[in-house]
Order: sequence, then C-alpha cells, then structure tokens
Amino acid sequence: MLIVMKPDATQSDIDRVVQVIERLGFRGHPMPGESRTAIGVTGNRGSVDPTHFENLPGVAEAIRVTKPYKLISSDLRPGRSVIKVGNATIGGGELAMIAGPCAVETPGQVFKVAEVVAASGAKFFRGGAFKPRTSPYAFQGKGEEGLKILAEVRDQFGLNIVTEAMDEHGIDLVEKYGDCIQIGARNMQNFSLLKYAGKTRKPILLKRGLSATLDEFLLAAEYIMAEGNYDVILCERGIRTFADHARNTLDISIVPAIRRLSHLPVIIDPSHASGHNYMVEPLARAGVAVGADGLIIEVHPCPEEALCDGAQALTPLQYTQLYRQLQTLHNSIHMEEAIHAPA
Amino acid sequence: MLIVMKPDATQSDIDRVVQVIERLGFRGHPMPGESRTAIGVTGNRGSVDPTHFENLPGVAEAIRVTKPYKLISSDLRPGRSVIKVGNATIGGGELAMIAGPCAVETPGQVFKVAEVVAASGAKFFRGGAFKPRTSPYAFQGKGEEGLKILAEVRDQFGLNIVTEAMDEHGIDLVEKYGDCIQIGARNMQNFSLLKYAGKTRKPILLKRGLSATLDEFLLAAEYIMAEGNYDVILCERGIRTFADHARNTLDISIVPAIRRLSHLPVIIDPSHASGHNYMVEPLARAGVAVGADGLIIEVHPCPEEALCDGAQALTPLQYTQLYRQLQTLHNSIHMEEAIHAPA
Amino acid sequence: MLIVMKPDATQSDIDRVVQVIERLGFRGHPMPGESRTAIGVTGNRGSVDPTHFENLPGVAEAIRVTKPYKLISSDLRPGRSVIKVGNATIGGGELAMIAGPCAVETPGQVFKVAEVVAASGAKFFRGGAFKPRTSPYAFQGKGEEGLKILAEVRDQFGLNIVTEAMDEHGIDLVEKYGDCIQIGARNMQNFSLLKYAGKTRKPILLKRGLSATLDEFLLAAEYIMAEGNYDVILCERGIRTFADHARNTLDISIVPAIRRLSHLPVIIDPSHASGHNYMVEPLARAGVAVGADGLIIEVHPCPEEALCDGAQALTPLQYTQLYRQLQTLHNSIHMEEAIHAPA
Amino acid sequence: MLIVMKPDATQSDIDRVVQVIERLGFRGHPMPGESRTAIGVTGNRGSVDPTHFENLPGVAEAIRVTKPYKLISSDLRPGRSVIKVGNATIGGGELAMIAGPCAVETPGQVFKVAEVVAASGAKFFRGGAFKPRTSPYAFQGKGEEGLKILAEVRDQFGLNIVTEAMDEHGIDLVEKYGDCIQIGARNMQNFSLLKYAGKTRKPILLKRGLSATLDEFLLAAEYIMAEGNYDVILCERGIRTFADHARNTLDISIVPAIRRLSHLPVIIDPSHASGHNYMVEPLARAGVAVGADGLIIEVHPCPEEALCDGAQALTPLQYTQLYRQLQTLHNSIHMEEAIHAPA
Repeated sequence: MLIVMKPDATQSDIDRVVQVIERLGFRGHPMPGESRTAIGVTGNRGSVDPTHFENLPGVAEAIRVTKPYKLISSDLRPGRSVIKVGNATIGGGELAMIAGPCAVETPGQVFKVAEVVAASGAKFFRGGAFKPRTSPYAFQGKGEEGLKILAEVRDQFGLNIVTEAMDEHGIDLVEKYGDCIQIGARNMQNFSLLKYAGKTRKPILLKRGLSATLDEFLLAAEYIMAEGNYDVILCERGIRTFADHARNTLDISIVPAIRRLSHLPVIIDPSHASGHNYMVEPLARAGVAVGADGLIIEVHPCPEEALCDGAQALTPLQYTQLYRQLQTLHNSIHMEEAIHAPA
Repeated sequence: MLIVMKPDATQSDIDRVVQVIERLGFRGHPMPGESRTAIGVTGNRGSVDPTHFENLPGVAEAIRVTKPYKLISSDLRPGRSVIKVGNATIGGGELAMIAGPCAVETPGQVFKVAEVVAASGAKFFRGGAFKPRTSPYAFQGKGEEGLKILAEVRDQFGLNIVTEAMDEHGIDLVEKYGDCIQIGARNMQNFSLLKYAGKTRKPILLKRGLSATLDEFLLAAEYIMAEGNYDVILCERGIRTFADHARNTLDISIVPAIRRLSHLPVIIDPSHASGHNYMVEPLARAGVAVGADGLIIEVHPCPEEALCDGAQALTPLQYTQLYRQLQTLHNSIHMEEAIHAPA
Repeated sequence: MLIVMKPDATQSDIDRVVQVIERLGFRGHPMPGESRTAIGVTGNRGSVDPTHFENLPGVAEAIRVTKPYKLISSDLRPGRSVIKVGNATIGGGELAMIAGPCAVETPGQVFKVAEVVAASGAKFFRGGAFKPRTSPYAFQGKGEEGLKILAEVRDQFGLNIVTEAMDEHGIDLVEKYGDCIQIGARNMQNFSLLKYAGKTRKPILLKRGLSATLDEFLLAAEYIMAEGNYDVILCERGIRTFADHARNTLDISIVPAIRRLSHLPVIIDPSHASGHNYMVEPLARAGVAVGADGLIIEVHPCPEEALCDGAQALTPLQYTQLYRQLQTLHNSIHMEEAIHAPA
Repeated sequence: MLIVMKPDATQSDIDRVVQVIERLGFRGHPMPGESRTAIGVTGNRGSVDPTHFENLPGVAEAIRVTKPYKLISSDLRPGRSVIKVGNATIGGGELAMIAGPCAVETPGQVFKVAEVVAASGAKFFRGGAFKPRTSPYAFQGKGEEGLKILAEVRDQFGLNIVTEAMDEHGIDLVEKYGDCIQIGARNMQNFSLLKYAGKTRKPILLKRGLSATLDEFLLAAEYIMAEGNYDVILCERGIRTFADHARNTLDISIVPAIRRLSHLPVIIDPSHASGHNYMVEPLARAGVAVGADGLIIEVHPCPEEALCDGAQALTPLQYTQLYRQLQTLHNSIHMEEAIHAPA
C-alpha cells in the first residue's frame, strides 16, 4: 500500500496518516519528494483496505502495490534519490568516484593512495578493514586497527570513507569510524545483516550478489529500507557466468533496468567485475556511458605487492589519468543529453 | 602442512606435535583415522618448514599441502567421515532421510508430519523456524517458538532435529533446541557466521550457495572446521543457471566430485532444487543413485496451504511411498556395488 | 490447432480431414494413438477457425493450441512414442544402451569395442565419422571411410548404428550407412539442418544445445517433426554453467520436465556431460534412476590413446560392469514403480 | 607455427616459404603487416620443426605457437585489421554504424528505414531475409525476394548491405546480393557453415554464440580464416545467463579481451542483447565507450507492427538522435585518449 499525499498536505496530515498505519499494526514510511510526500505501508501480509486512508485530510490517493517491492520503487518517490555520504552526495548528477586500495594494509600504503585520490578531486575513499576471503587461510583484514587508519584519512584528506562490514559487530565499528557501510556481494542475502544495517543511520552501499536477479537485488535494498534506513546506494560488481575471460561478467544493463524501477542511485565496480588491470579503464568508461551515478575503483601504490586482489588495482598514475578521462566523458554525455532531450 | 603420525603413535606423541605447532603460532587439528592419526596445521601464511616435525616421536611424515583446503581433504582423513547427529549418524553407509515441512507453522501441522516421518523409519526431522525470504514482507518464520515445537517433536517421536540458523543469535538457539544447525545457501559465504558455527559443538549442515564452485563450497566447510568443529555435512540444493524448467538446476555431478576430494558426507535436497512436487521423486532417486549419503525432503500435510514453498512439498502419502522406494533402491545399488567391486 | 478423431473414425475420415487442412493451405500430421488418432495442423500463422472441422465425419474435437509446440506435445499423442531404430526400439520400457568410441579411428579400434558392446547385450553402437571440434586444427573425423567401418559393425555384430551428421551432405551419408542420425549440441538450432533432417526417413537423435532452454529444445524437435519425420529421440548431454568440476552440468531434471510435456523418448549422455571417466558410472546410474529411456556411453579400447575425448571414455571392462549394473537398477526401479503405483 | 619475415623480405622470399610449407603438406597464410609479413602455418597436427624454415632467405624467426589459435592472433598481425565492406571499412578508427530492420518485410518498410539510415551518415544497412526463429511456425523471412529488396537499397542509397545466411545456399545468395555475410549466434559453431563461409570472398560478420567462451569465439573465426577468408568482424550480442531483466547479458568485457589477443575488429549489438527499446541507447553508448569498432542497431518505421523483435527496435527519430550522440561520444573518447596516451 502506498499513500500519496496532496502537494499542500501539512506535516500534521502526514503524522496523522502514519499514526493510523501504526494503529493498524503496520509500519509507515514517509518519503518526501520534490512536490509531495508519499507514505509506504509495510508489515502487512496480504492487502490493506484503502478506505482506511482515502478520507483522511491531505491524502490524494491510496494505491495498492502489487510489485514485491515498495520503498525502493519510483512509484513511491518519482524523482531520484540523492544520498548524503559524509560531506558529499551520491546520486545528484555529479559522477561520484570512490577510490582506494582493496585492503587496508599499512598506514603508509593507505596515505600514499589517499593523497592521490584527494588530489584527483574525488570525494570518497575505499579500503577494506574486514575482508571476505574464499579461504579461511587468506589475509582477513586488519579489523578495527584498519578502521582507525581510514578515520585518519578522513581527518587528513577530507575524504569520506566507504568500507565493508561483514557482521553486526563490524557494522557497529564502521558506523563509528566510517561514512558509508558497504555490504558485500556474498552478504547480499544475509537478511539478518540487512535488517541490522537498516537500523543504523549511516548510508549503505549494497553490492549485488554474484547470482542475484534484479528483483532479489532490489528486495535486498528493500530489507534495509523497511527498517527505516532509506539511504541505500546499489552497486553492480559483475555476476557469475560461464564466461572465463574476466573474473565476473559486468552486467551494465542492470543500470537502465534499475533506473526504470527505482529512485536509488547505482554505481559500477569495474575492478572486482573484471579482475584485470587492463580492463578497468574501458569498463569504467562503459559504466559512465551507461549512466551510472559513480564508480568504485581499486588503486594501490604497488599493485604487484598487494595482499589482496593486486592484479586488478590501478597504479596511482593510471588512476589519475582515468579520473580525468571519466569526468570529461560524464560531462560530455550530460551535455549531449541536454541537447537531445525532447523539449 | 599435514603431519601424518605412525600407526603406533601414542596420544602423548600426538599432544606433543600439537604443542610444537602451537608454539610456532599455528593451530593443530588432530583427526583420528582408522589406522592412524593425521594432524592438520592451519593459521600459517605461506609454507611451514617440515623439519620442525619430522624428527618428533611418532611422526611418519610432514607433507606440504598445496591445495587451498586442508581439513576437508581426503589426504587428511583417507576414510569417510561418519557424523553423529543426535542419536543417529550421517555418512556411514545407511541412507539418511531428513524430512519435514519447509517452515514450522503450527504445532498441529508439525506433529502431523512428524508422525508420518517417524512411522516411515526416518531418523531426522527438518522444519524452519527462521526463514530466509527474498522479500522482507514474506513470512519470516516463528523464531524461538518454532524451535520449541521442534524440540517437542524430538521428545515425542525420537526424531533428530535439523533446522536453519541465520545469525549468531539463531545459532545459539538452534544449538540449544536442535541437533544439527543448517546454514542456508544464501549464507554459504557469510564467513562470520561460518566461523561462529565452527565454535559450536553441534554438527553443521552446510548448503551449497546458488553460484558456488566446488572449491568455494569446500572452503566454506573449511572455515567451519578451521575453528574446531569437524562435523560438517554438505548439501547440494541446486544451482542458478539459465534453465527455467526447474527453480534451480540440481548438480548431481558434485557428489562424485566431492567424494574424490573430501571425506565429508554429502546429501541432496531435491525439493528446493526443483521447486516442483512432480520432480521430487525422480530427482530423489537420482540422488540415491549418484551416491549421496542422504536426502532432505519437504513434506506438508496440506501443501496447497503451506505458508512457504508449498508447490514442492510432498503429501504424507507421497513421502511414505518415496521413502520405501529409496531405501530399496539404496540397498540394491549397494548390493550391486559389492558384487561388481574388484576383488 | 489439434483435431482429435473419434475412436471409431475410419481411415477415409482421417484422409478427408487432412484434405480440408491442405485445401486451407496448411499441413496435416495424423498421429495414430492407442485408441484414436489426432491430427496436428501446422503452417498457420495465428489461429485457425475450428468450425472448419468440427462437423466433419469422425471428428471428436478441434482444439486451439496455445503452446508454441504441437507435434512434440503429449496433447497430440497421450501415450509415449516408441521409436524404431534399425532392428530395435527406443522408448518402449527397456533401457536402451548406445555405446562405442567417441570417434571412429581405425577398423581395429572400432571392432574391438563393437565386440564388447555386442557381448554386453546392447543393441546400439555409436561412433563419430564427422567430429565437431572447437579448433579447426583438431582431428575432424574419418568421414565416409568411417561410416563404412560402422556399416561393417552392423553387418558383423548386428548392432544398430547411431552417428552424427553436421551438414546436409553428412545427413545423406548417414542415412545411407547408419540407422540413426545424430544432430549434435552445437547444431541444435541450425534450423536449416533440422528441416533437412525432417525430410529423411531415419530416426533422429537430437542433442540439447549447451544453453538451450526446455522450450528451445522441444521446438528444435518440432522443426524436425514439422517436416514429417516424427522419429525424434531427445538427449540431455549437459549444459554450460559456471560450475567447473565437470565439463558441463548434467541437468537431469529435464527428464521429468520433458515427460510432462512430450511423448518423445529422452536419453542421457553422462560421458560428454562430465568429461571425466570417474563420473560416468554415478551419472549413468542417476540417469536410469531419474527415468531416462536410455544412455549413450563412450567406450575406448585404450582411452589414453584416443584421438578425441579420451579422458571420459570407459575401458571395455568398466563398460561391461556398468552395463550389468544399470540393467539391474532399471529393472529394480520398474518393479518398485509397479508395486507403488496407485491401483 | 608462425614464420615472421624480415622487414626487407621480398615477395619471392615469401612465396618460397609458402612453397616449402605446402611441400610439407600444410597450408601457408601470408598476412602482410605494416612493417613486415608473417606467415601462419596451419594443417599440422602436433608441432612442426622450425629448422625447415629458419635458414630460408628473408625469414627472421620461426615461432612455435602454443595457443589454440593462429590466424586471429595479434602475434601474426601486430596492427589492427581494417576490413573492407563494400565501399567502406570497419576497424579503422571510425565508428561503424550498421542499422536497419530486424527482418525485411516489404519494400516500403525497408526503404523508409534506409532513407533514415542513409541520411544519418551511416554506411551500412542491416535486414534479415533469412530469419533463424526458435519456432518452426514463426515468420522465417522473405528469402531471395528479401535480398533483392536489400540490393535495391544499396543501389538507391549507397548503403553497404549486411545480412544473415543460415546455410550454404543462403551464403551463395548473400554473396551475390549483399556486401557482408552475417553468421548468427546459433550457427557460431556450425563448423561446416564456417568452412563454407571461409571459401567466399565477402567479409563475414560473426556473432558470438549464446554460451561461447572467448576461446570458442576466436576459434570459430579461425575456422573461417583457415579456409583463406581473413575478413572477419566479430560481434558481441549478449550471452545467456540467469539474469532476467534483459533478454541476454551484454558482455562488454569481451571487447578489451579480444583486443589483447586478436587484430580483428569487434562490434556490439545492443538491440539483440537487451531485447528492450529503452536499453538500446545506454548500451550503445557503453559499447562505444568500451572501445567497440561499431554497432549494429535495429530500426523499424513502426516497431509495434514488426513481424519480428519489434520490442527492441528504435523508431527512426530515436535512431537519428542516437547516431549523433554516439558519433560525438566516439570522437570525445578518441580525443581524450590522444591527450592521455603516454608520449
């Protein structure tokens, strides 16, 4: 059920509708749009009677929702969500660049990359303190010590920190030290973790699972939002297919597909998708061209010595050139779009 | 590193080797076999010098292991593991049958099925109290209340309880009420959960992820075992492919593939693999024929009213007939194998 | 459109209906069943008006068919098709065994295997004279010379010859020398070849394409049947997925899925599906258990010297033991089914 | 075996080497590069002794090739191939646009689109006279009549005609009426057809099979080239995966992967890859951005009335706007590359 308020509905009209929803045993999620507010109703099994709401003051419409998702839906918020991450935003028309090493290894390594990232003009820094590794015997990350290094990066360079959490304890720590909590592909359907993330007040970067359909991906975001955290950024990072020339198959067509259904921003991870340094640049360009709101890119001062995923990391020089190239490309596409858009 | 003890090595020889391993900062995992004990060494990055061990009393050999897994490997335990689950076992030559409803709904529903399952001769009962659902708005299970109903099934019918946990709190509860902790496909690479499960002392039923390779599946088991819990049962439940005539594609070839590499038992879930009632019987037969150690099958007193996955549940009558058919098939194959085995 | 005749319709009633169909510019395909004949109408775009037929003598019903297939459908022929291949049949309750080398290499090699196959009791012999190879530089088969060797096998051992054709010329030759024309996985949607095969009067063994859905597979058979050749045997030989422990993923669930929709027999190829000698036996057992009408198995007198696919070929001894094991299994399952079938 | 000639080798040196190759029973394929000629040797099983060649006049090196492909390889021709198609080229730095309807339906429909395509500045026109259709009952194309309409398009509009052939007869006809022979995804491993196409003297547009790996794709091109036709253009048109938001998954990462191994040009088909009108524009942009040499795009004067694949066709207006947008994008990327390329 989706309740659309009139453009001139007051805050107290909205509060009243939420009270009625809650009295019925459900949850109300007011989401202010540009011209009017919509209120999602969740927690109901089966349909809710629209007549509960249609005559309340300020209500324009009560719409039955038959799709399996509600809060992620463009029906609820016809514009596009702009998510605040630290002192910057993702989704608002600029191309967001999140760059940094795969794993936090040493302060020296991290600061060297952070300097390059900050100098490029990027506003977000990535780096893993908790690393999901296929083998229990592989390097698992530096934990809280790594997060402290990242917090220093924010202080010194003004970059906003995006970093992965793998469990509830990790979420607590990232909420404390970071600016955006990343949930990795392997945890995309770790529903307990999604619910926990939905209770935090930091934005969530949700990576698509290796074999997640569009619906499953959107519903994973819905899990987070249903708990009250509406600041979700989606990330395509390659899916598992038979193709063996890249580590995963970057599925760029999910960007326009998400756009059609959802108001949430979506970014592309060409580093994990390809697993090869030489593919990062062309795939990053394709990500911008297909309309992604941003990119997440691995950079390492010395890729051949990286403890994790070195084969795909860019050198600082490669990164700096790519950053400029992508910004130019992004501007040129948006200029073009402005010209060709129907009046 | 794998240290193989001589057949006549004493317990104190074994303890001594473990002490040396621990003094070096690693972990030792003694695994007694039929004729001799092998000790896995984990926690090392890079290789360990075998000369630390070769001259200790009772040591036959110290072998460098190049494969990414150790504890799951047949190199470590050449026989086949027999896992104790409650008062019965899985992996020891008998065909284990784990049957019950997808979700615990009401005591009436559960007891009706349990009566049928116990009467058939099966020793294990399944039923979900925590349900991983793609949508946050779908029925999520009865939680602890459901576990209490399952515990009553054990008391009344003598069936051993296999039930899923989705997070640490769930594992604590299942450890308390159940006999075997199931980790679902979506959590197969939830490494924090695997580690937590590795610290319990209840056997773990680990389901293969929807897009997990053989190596990833075995390494997920290795995560559990590296924490000290060696009682892992693997479960093939269908993988995600392009094929659309079944919900997932049951990959039976993984059974002989696991057998070649690992001593762990492996079972088949034809209900989740197919998603269709009419496929369960033929796929269950194929599972027995390919050499699985057991089956996990959904039964519901009234499939068309099930709150979850009703389309694939067998009726009690279908289940009872299938149970007899599969036992006969299992016996006939093992008789045949005995006849045709090279002398 | 499907026209179902009354049980007492005469041949001249049937002929009359076919004449009417042809006068409308379509094609009629009479298919006699146990108790009555059904006549498929093809060649129409869009629907055909049933009133053309409903009042003709002998017509029971004229049914609009909305599924994309007609001739393969169980609606058209409710029983199961039994296909005559040389002097034997496939689909009639017995387990058909088609065995032989991947490629015809030399008369010596072929006769050595044929002797073993004939001695086992099998009625069908396989061997490729035209080999579809991924590389243009790999051994491509002996061509017509190979077919002559196969024809000699029939003469000497009484085995019926199943062998692949890759183009129209090959079909002409296999029609001349062989008993059953195999169309390989890579040609499953070579529609020109399917149509050409539909004009021959030899049965067709149609292998499923590496990424064919159930519908595409059945429609490929429909292409052959729409040309008038109704003797099609389907073969599951593994699909392409991300899983890397076997060469392909044997999708046994397609057997019950085909059964539900089609009257055509279906066999399993565990050799090509797995690519590994050690997997052939368990997968063959699973194929029998899931209800396949037969198996196609590679045997080589000296697998390690085979010019093609040696890794998966059974030795003569392995084959002989497997043959007996599978016949016993097949009998035991059918006895079981007879016992448990509802009265 | 690959024989690299010295920069100053004469034509008679080259001829001499080819003679020696042929005397040994193999085939020689001289491929002139910018500074020197390389000669591929095919037809050998196993390795060829390099000493046959090393001392011949003009020979710089004789290199053993261990990769499964030779003629497609950048080792053989270090530059990039520029393929002449009618009066234009593909692969030479310009963005090639091949546009037109999925199927040739009527002269009116075709000419209406051709006018738009020619006016846009594109040099290539597509349209199917032979249509591979999953169902035998779907529209199969107009055949030779359709090809005559396409030939008229060339005469009237100066566009070069790219059209599919499905069998040898079709190849003969397309060779007569068209400028470039398309081999469709379903025939990518129809090896007889590939060999036949290799004997023509028209360029071949080879589409990637739905489940073809990079190696299989390149080896299919190798089949054509091994017969002497070196003018092959590769086309990525989406692969089959579990993802269901688009008809296929456009695998753009194959563009840089092909670039690394092969000198052949590669184009992108966003229409067939996506199956949705709304995805064509963003995927086309991504294709340009990832570095494709061209695009093949469906345009229909009235998409909702198309006999085949209407859902994905662009309207003439959409096409014209897209064409301009893509040319601007292509130019901007190449300007950028020129600026950022290392001196």
